[in-house]
Amino acid sequence: MDEGAIRDLLARVSGGEVSVEEAVSALRHLPFEDIGFAKIDHHRALRCGQEEVIFCPGKTPAQVAQIGARILEHGHGLLATRADAEHFEALKETCPDAEYRPDARCILVRKTGQELRGLVLVLTAGTSDIPVAAEAALTAEFLGASVELISDVGVAGIHRLLRYAERLQQANVLVVAAGMEGALASVVGGLVSRPVIAVPTSVGYGASFGGVAPLLTMLNSCASGVAVVNIDNGFGAGYMAALINDMAVEGGGHGG
Amino acid sequence: MDEGAIRDLLARVSGGEVSVEEAVSALRHLPFEDIGFAKIDHHRALRCGQEEVIFCPGKTPAQVAQIGARILEHGHGLLATRADAEHFEALKETCPDAEYRPDARCILVRKTGQELRGLVLVLTAGTSDIPVAAEAALTAEFLGASVELISDVGVAGIHRLLRYAERLQQANVLVVAAGMEGALASVVGGLVSRPVIAVPTSVGYGASFGGVAPLLTMLNSCASGVAVVNIDNGFGAGYMAALINDMAVEGGGHGG
Amino acid sequence: MDEGAIRDLLARVSGGEVSVEEAVSALRHLPFEDIGFAKIDHHRALRCGQEEVIFCPGKTPAQVAQIGARILEHGHGLLATRADAEHFEALKETCPDAEYRPDARCILVRKTGQELRGLVLVLTAGTSDIPVAAEAALTAEFLGASVELISDVGVAGIHRLLRYAERLQQANVLVVAAGMEGALASVVGGLVSRPVIAVPTSVGYGASFGGVAPLLTMLNSCASGVAVVNIDNGFGAGYMAALINDMAVEGGGHGG
Amino acid sequence: MDEGAIRDLLARVSGGEVSVEEAVSALRHLPFEDIGFAKIDHHRALRCGQEEVIFCPGKTPAQVAQIGARILEHGHGLLATRADAEHFEALKETCPDAEYRPDARCILVRKTGQELRGLVLVLTAGTSDIPVAAEAALTAEFLGASVELISDVGVAGIHRLLRYAERLQQANVLVVAAGMEGALASVVGGLVSRPVIAVPTSVGYGASFGGVAPLLTMLNSCASGVAVVNIDNGFGAGYMAALINDMAVEGGGHGG
Amino acid sequence: MDEGAIRDLLARVSGGEVSVEEAVSALRHLPFEDIGFAKIDHHRALRCGQEEVIFCPGKTPAQVAQIGARILEHGHGLLATRADAEHFEALKETCPDAEYRPDARCILVRKTGQELRGLVLVLTAGTSDIPVAAEAALTAEFLGASVELISDVGVAGIHRLLRYAERLQQANVLVVAAGMEGALASVVGGLVSRPVIAVPTSVGYGASFGGVAPLLTMLNSCASGVAVVNIDNGFGAGYMAALINDMAVEGGGHGG
Amino acid sequence: MDEGAIRDLLARVSGGEVSVEEAVSALRHLPFEDIGFAKIDHHRALRCGQEEVIFCPGKTPAQVAQIGARILEHGHGLLATRADAEHFEALKETCPDAEYRPDARCILVRKTGQELRGLVLVLTAGTSDIPVAAEAALTAEFLGASVELISDVGVAGIHRLLRYAERLQQANVLVVAAGMEGALASVVGGLVSRPVIAVPTSVGYGASFGGVAPLLTMLNSCASGVAVVNIDNGFGAGYMAALINDMAVEGGGHGG
Amino acid sequence: MDEGAIRDLLARVSGGEVSVEEAVSALRHLPFEDIGFAKIDHHRALRCGQEEVIFCPGKTPAQVAQIGARILEHGHGLLATRADAEHFEALKETCPDAEYRPDARCILVRKTGQELRGLVLVLTAGTSDIPVAAEAALTAEFLGASVELISDVGVAGIHRLLRYAERLQQANVLVVAAGMEGALASVVGGLVSRPVIAVPTSVGYGASFGGVAPLLTMLNSCASGVAVVNIDNGFGAGYMAALINDMAVEGGGHGG
Amino acid sequence: MDEGAIRDLLARVSGGEVSVEEAVSALRHLPFEDIGFAKIDHHRALRCGQEEVIFCPGKTPAQVAQIGARILEHGHGLLATRADAEHFEALKETCPDAEYRPDARCILVRKTGQELRGLVLVLTAGTSDIPVAAEAALTAEFLGASVELISDVGVAGIHRLLRYAERLQQANVLVVAAGMEGALASVVGGLVSRPVIAVPTSVGYGASFGGVAPLLTMLNSCASGVAVVNIDNGFGAGYMAALINDMAVEGGGHGG
Repeated sequence: MDEGAIRDLLARVSGGEVSVEEAVSALRHLPFEDIGFAKIDHHRALRCGQEEVIFCPGKTPAQVAQIGARILEHGHGLLATRADAEHFEALKETCPDAEYRPDARCILVRKTGQELRGLVLVLTAGTSDIPVAAEAALTAEFLGASVELISDVGVAGIHRLLRYAERLQQANVLVVAAGMEGALASVVGGLVSRPVIAVPTSVGYGASFGGVAPLLTMLNSCASGVAVVNIDNGFGAGYMAALINDMAVEGGGHGG
Repeated sequence: MDEGAIRDLLARVSGGEVSVEEAVSALRHLPFEDIGFAKIDHHRALRCGQEEVIFCPGKTPAQVAQIGARILEHGHGLLATRADAEHFEALKETCPDAEYRPDARCILVRKTGQELRGLVLVLTAGTSDIPVAAEAALTAEFLGASVELISDVGVAGIHRLLRYAERLQQANVLVVAAGMEGALASVVGGLVSRPVIAVPTSVGYGASFGGVAPLLTMLNSCASGVAVVNIDNGFGAGYMAALINDMAVEGGGHGG
Repeated sequence: MDEGAIRDLLARVSGGEVSVEEAVSALRHLPFEDIGFAKIDHHRALRCGQEEVIFCPGKTPAQVAQIGARILEHGHGLLATRADAEHFEALKETCPDAEYRPDARCILVRKTGQELRGLVLVLTAGTSDIPVAAEAALTAEFLGASVELISDVGVAGIHRLLRYAERLQQANVLVVAAGMEGALASVVGGLVSRPVIAVPTSVGYGASFGGVAPLLTMLNSCASGVAVVNIDNGFGAGYMAALINDMAVEGGGHGG
Repeated sequence: MDEGAIRDLLARVSGGEVSVEEAVSALRHLPFEDIGFAKIDHHRALRCGQEEVIFCPGKTPAQVAQIGARILEHGHGLLATRADAEHFEALKETCPDAEYRPDARCILVRKTGQELRGLVLVLTAGTSDIPVAAEAALTAEFLGASVELISDVGVAGIHRLLRYAERLQQANVLVVAAGMEGALASVVGGLVSRPVIAVPTSVGYGASFGGVAPLLTMLNSCASGVAVVNIDNGFGAGYMAALINDMAVEGGGHGG
Repeated sequence: MDEGAIRDLLARVSGGEVSVEEAVSALRHLPFEDIGFAKIDHHRALRCGQEEVIFCPGKTPAQVAQIGARILEHGHGLLATRADAEHFEALKETCPDAEYRPDARCILVRKTGQELRGLVLVLTAGTSDIPVAAEAALTAEFLGASVELISDVGVAGIHRLLRYAERLQQANVLVVAAGMEGALASVVGGLVSRPVIAVPTSVGYGASFGGVAPLLTMLNSCASGVAVVNIDNGFGAGYMAALINDMAVEGGGHGG
Repeated sequence: MDEGAIRDLLARVSGGEVSVEEAVSALRHLPFEDIGFAKIDHHRALRCGQEEVIFCPGKTPAQVAQIGARILEHGHGLLATRADAEHFEALKETCPDAEYRPDARCILVRKTGQELRGLVLVLTAGTSDIPVAAEAALTAEFLGASVELISDVGVAGIHRLLRYAERLQQANVLVVAAGMEGALASVVGGLVSRPVIAVPTSVGYGASFGGVAPLLTMLNSCASGVAVVNIDNGFGAGYMAALINDMAVEGGGHGG
Repeated sequence: MDEGAIRDLLARVSGGEVSVEEAVSALRHLPFEDIGFAKIDHHRALRCGQEEVIFCPGKTPAQVAQIGARILEHGHGLLATRADAEHFEALKETCPDAEYRPDARCILVRKTGQELRGLVLVLTAGTSDIPVAAEAALTAEFLGASVELISDVGVAGIHRLLRYAERLQQANVLVVAAGMEGALASVVGGLVSRPVIAVPTSVGYGASFGGVAPLLTMLNSCASGVAVVNIDNGFGAGYMAALINDMAVEGGGHGG
Repeated sequence: MDEGAIRDLLARVSGGEVSVEEAVSALRHLPFEDIGFAKIDHHRALRCGQEEVIFCPGKTPAQVAQIGARILEHGHGLLATRADAEHFEALKETCPDAEYRPDARCILVRKTGQELRGLVLVLTAGTSDIPVAAEAALTAEFLGASVELISDVGVAGIHRLLRYAERLQQANVLVVAAGMEGALASVVGGLVSRPVIAVPTSVGYGASFGGVAPLLTMLNSCASGVAVVNIDNGFGAGYMAALINDMAVEGGGHGG
């Protein structure tokens, strides 16, 4: 898949430095690590430019601790999402630097010497959307973005949002977390010229159907420049926002 | 059901003015008229305070004309909704006063001497929502309300709506017709202190699901004072708005 | 947004009473109060004519108490919906006047000297719909309406409803709370000439789908003058009913 | 499957009248007729007590004609549902007695000498429900029931239904066809002591979702004695009603 | 509503035996009893030919006991469905004759001297469908039917069902309770000439969606003579079956 | 991906027969052919053991003809599914051997000298399911299976199916095409010891929801040995059946 | 149903060895065993070639133990799926050989002297899909297949899967268990020439809707040779895979 | 809303250059243009950095031409999406420079002197996804991005995609258009370190439900860095991609 690496390998085969069998073996053993129940993708940092993240649901505290230890052996930071206190207790034994952020339901081992840059703005419609927004904010920060969270600026009191109109213009990318009817993403999308990542939350009741109502609202947004991630997927929104923020800071994209 | 009428009837039975058989007959022949395929409810004007309206889909032009003629014999005006040109042609032969409003897909025979009063404001998010909004506006006007229609003030360009902030405050009741994500109802609901009747439209595509997306948005509105009618039900919205507008103009409600 | 206020402000800027920077600042600091996790909208009483209400789910007792205290500092009454006993215990410490109404799952601080007026009639199809109906009734009463609740008049025993036919005619607005098949709203809508606010409840099982069945029934009502709020949204129904009841009592609507 | 027949066959095998191979063959050739694309179940009259019916959609006029001819060869009457004029033209050539009932979208060959008995009452909520109701009525009549159809007695004008209260009590079984919100079945179910077969129709728009709304309403009916058939399945409702009507007329059920 | 009663009343008014006010009052006080949170419909026995049944969910044990006591004061038997042990404990204090049937989740006070007659056959596809089937069987028996329950005859082992082919033919009406794919109703419907009441159960997992899969299967049954009640609605199925069984035993239906 | 090929290539690079650049190029040019709007996967015959098939919807007749001509240049047979007469006319010009099978909506160029073997049995519940079944049968035959189609053996007349009980046992794999309630797959699955591929069809109306009802039925089948393909996907069912039939005929699977 | 058996029986009736009554009785008493709440289908081993399996949900530990004991009396092995520790404790008392496999949530009594053969490959997209995959693997092994489980090879790190490309080619049949978006089945289906049984899992959150997202993905797979079982139905997938694996090993299918 | 503009205006009011009334008027007349049925938002170019785009469905050719002419008067380019030939004919009369791109269903007036830069890669799973992809590509190009479209690289032949692995790495942002099961977005997301905008298409049949299947697949993507727009919303995907591409080229984002 990585043509450069294949090219090098082939050159060394051609030069006799590497035998055919060794090359086959090398191509087979791409850098992920098999620890039985999971395959840790150390290669992802190279391929996708980001560290490994643990999604905790369905994993025992012991499994999370074991995966976490392996990741940290390779010198990366670590982010574990949807983590509860038991996960944290287990992980802390092997990773004393780990910190638990209950508002975002995340465990975090920060990368040393990382400088935060750019600006990702995370907005919530109501106070109940904060856990999802906090996961997004923490994720983006873990990946190197400078982040601000502004909560409770839903559209039913539009002046609360408009007060931040100036700040909205300054962000490289915005994350909007909203449940109930999810209309905030459209209004924000109409106010800014930068990408808006909308994350519907399962906050609400009745015909909100666990987040389906804001999901549909956001997908049908009449504002351009809005894209959507899964219900309650704060991590996905924060990841996407960090990717874009990085590009906005660095520039020099292909063909520029 | 109508205790006053039963009381009168009973008094006349008691006084010998009306025989038992006549009373039974009278109770049986409540004022609706059976013309075979339909039962015209002349009584509705008395009971519900409104005229008879014809919902045209599934009725032939001849049927619409026949029902219309009977209604007009009793001196009422007439409103036929979801009407097409064929319905109009058939109805016009027996009712030369009928006018066709293709924007609202309605046929109308106005009540003579009717004075429009109060203010119902009908808003649309986009231009494609106008047919539904026009049906609502025409219905409310037919029922005696003074109506204004403001179109294309969707939330993706919030300043277009805010320009009308003052006018919004002057309405007794507001109708908001919006498809796609339907967020306009929530924003309007947060700006005014009067009831908002939200009517989702089937305008949109993909995950709008023929109006389900704005329907859910409106049902989940985080603004108070918003109630919802069926998808594309401009008539229902206009009817409800006219009821409320009447009360706002007349006052003197029970217990006042 | 409020043209009058802007006009005043501009006049004072023009007259030199207010500096440009002060005016910018004033425009920025519209009257909501930021207490970190929530933005309390004191302005809503001015803008929407109603007090602040707390929706408790997803908020800790301490948060509810803190928000409640701030609201009451500004002299308003207070209504907290979907509240449980823990919310009440926390709130009571700072607000000794608060009372808990478990049937309606609400905490209430009544406004002093408030006179109830008009008539809002709240009907339920079954006894299981009472909690939602009680929330609607309490909300409307909190907002100044005189309210009556009639329960268990579902359509399967239509004579139970018809017994109240006379009383139905006297209300300015009716709230109908019904689960299972939700047919009560249509029957009531056909009997009265005033607006009916239908609130589907999640009472039922199987193909009731948590309130979807009565929601669809109500949206498809063949009776005119029926509008719908979200499943179990007793607050929304009561709020809407109080708005309309106020108008019916006061009258003098625009254009009258 | 038919123990009596197996018993007879076995007795004849035992008595040497029938060879083993013949018996195997007999068991294999149960009385249905294979005409290539369809297997006509002449046995159904014996097993289920009813004639063969053709469901026309997806069948060509020629296929309908061919199936119809075979059925009539065995002396039965014939009912073809969801038939259009082309089906009728084709069938008429081989069955000159066939009549077409466009209101019910059915082709009919009546059984000679059949006496109609009992009473099945078919009610519709609106005029647009008549085609489905007519299919139900025609089916029940074809199967020997005396049928009356009362249309346009939906719940939004409850007095139209109550006028027929006495007649409702006289039916052995009632069929209720209703679209939109489908509430009529519940009200009727509460008024009578006989079974109600509810058939939702696809009449309506928006959140009626092609008949899902009345289907859910009917399934969730709070009245007892209501069972439901598929959307627009007038045939199924009429068939069920005829079965029950027969039993009510004949009596002497098992264990009586 | 009951023309005979109105006629009598009017005759007595006409004859001076009853004053107008008394007549109004009589019409108003139809026989239901208002105990605040519920309206007990003693009239239902007259109107619908059946006793009052309590649906327990959402009612406290004390409420169930109170309603039960009132019903029994009028001399009826009693059936309480979806009852748990707490409901039973409360009810037993005032009704020592009450018995609890946990398999059917019902509390029962049998009517004295009731003779069971006819035959209702209740079938289940699997053993997990037994609770719903038992509710159906108990209900039908409470209403006077002789009932048999045959469980675990699902279509994946069709010979288990066919063994009962003879018995199936002897029932006046059959109830089929099935979850998962619900195919049993169609197969049974094809084997018998009597009505089949299909009750989908929420047994299953995954794409059974809490009973939606068997519900759709049953609604779409290709067999005639099948009608459907709500998911898990054993009571409704048993009630319907008893109605039909009664008619089959008694005969002499109208028009016979 | 194909280790053998990579191994060969590497050996030739190692031996100096192939330069590094040539090897990179070779790895890049895997055998699919890019004709602009489509990439024909000639490699699929090697990788998956089957020929290229054209799915016609959304492709113009000219595109189908162009793709078809390229496939046949490589000597394969050809199957085009969901084809209409226009597709056939266009394809026939370049492929005179092509034949059109309107019952299966397929265009076919048979492979020369192909011997059909094994036995795939394709069953339909009704006559309307035949087009989907015919597509399945033709696909399996095209891929080398001997196929029989038995139609109209739905479960409402179970004896029609049982007549074929012996033949069912002889198939290596069975395809069951059924719409409406789709119960046939479960019954067949309970009768045989070989795999059943169930294909729901969109035949039906109302709550069949375009094939959702039989899809759910089949997914929830209580019989083991049943797997499901997409609604109306006769091709997918036939392909799967042919794969299994091949294995049953050839045997000698790994580890045997 | 089993023609051979019927033929034998008839021959013995014909020869006087068996009386008619005995034959009727024999036909009636096909080999299932009725233990009241369940009908154990010992015949299934003969008819379908497989042992009896207990699906534990909805059954008490005592019921599972009782059914298990009866099955083992007939000398079969035993598999109980979706079993918890209580089921195991109860079953172990009567079946000391039973072993509990918590990863697969299964209880197992292996058949003595069984030789595993062929190759079934079970793949999972993530570690959370392992329980479903383990149920599939254990089921296939119980039925005689040699099984390998490869976990955590989801498509977001495609090189993890491609490393196993060679092994994928060696399986007779593959089971793919995947939640979230379920894309693994399509990629695997495109890489191999053998059947793929896809089993969606309920792993995921938000718009995964308890497994609906991967279910739809798998049904819509653009790869041929993929069929689907119910959400989380590891047993069904393993059963199907074992059936096919058996055929691949044995060969000699009909018509070969 | 635009603090800078308000600040200027206020300064001029303060300096006496602008009267209070003029300022109010200026604030009211933000730069959108009301042409009756639509409000053209010339301000959007300032506020959101992009030109006006016309969404044609529901607009007559004359309306499209009228809106188009107004937009071009202000010197902008123009993009009209979902346009048919009639829209083009009407628009061309007033805008001779307009060109029609039927593959993308768009009308285009290019901006003069615009230089394309960066790289947006648009991928399709199949040939039928090309119209949606072409709309995305054209939109991104209209907004200044250099775009490449690679079609027919769906996951069922994964080597077709992997051939482009190198090119994938060079894009600043990728758009993936896929119908049926939509798995391509996840695979691409796992291969690149740049944002992926996934656009589900309504291509497919049966359980694809008009694009719901790929929509859910994409929302549930196990790859990070994937966000989703509405079904068939090529415009939205292209707009979002252009926004991000611009940032990647320009860099210098806030806080950098």
